[in-house]
Amino acid sequence: MIRHTVVFNLKHDANSEAEGAFLRDALVLEAIPGVQKFERLRQVSPKADYAFGFSMEFADQAAYDGYNVHPDHVAFVRDRWVPEVAAFQEIDYVAL
Amino acid sequence: MIRHTVVFNLKHDANSEAEGAFLRDALVLEAIPGVQKFERLRQVSPKADYAFGFSMEFADQAAYDGYNVHPDHVAFVRDRWVPEVAAFQEIDYVAL
Repeated sequence: MIRHTVVFNLKHDANSEAEGAFLRDALVLEAIPGVQKFERLRQVSPKADYAFGFSMEFADQAAYDGYNVHPDHVAFVRDRWVPEVAAFQEIDYVAL
Repeated sequence: MIRHTVVFNLKHDANSEAEGAFLRDALVLEAIPGVQKFERLRQVSPKADYAFGFSMEFADQAAYDGYNVHPDHVAFVRDRWVPEVAAFQEIDYVAL
């Protein structure tokens, strides 16, 4: 199992329509083959300067690679992530 | 539910006895009341400059607060975390 997470901030104002649309439209990622346990999260630690997170799991590296090159993922990154995300940090985990 | 995570690097050499001891001794945190789904993780994204992570969940803020002030947590932070951790980032999540 590989857990892929990304914590991020949007360029949009908090509670704006654009913020809501981004978080809603990100559900397209959940439907990509191989994606398990997809979660949209709010980051709440005052020690981290990020507002949101996504988390998902893949059975193995092949499933993760398939997600990365899937047209729906490529389109979301190009059309929504790059123009609308102000800052982010990817963190991926496997069991120790 | 609140998911508390911390991604970190140790001052110890990779695969050293001291590294193993730290990761092994961190299991004391799993036994603290209120801690659920405790995980010790390896960070594997080349886009993140961290080697390890811990993740745990709390039913609510009261359980999280109880963990923070529990003597076993306070002692672990003082005696192991502060002297042995080189860098870290806390990230906490709740459902969106």
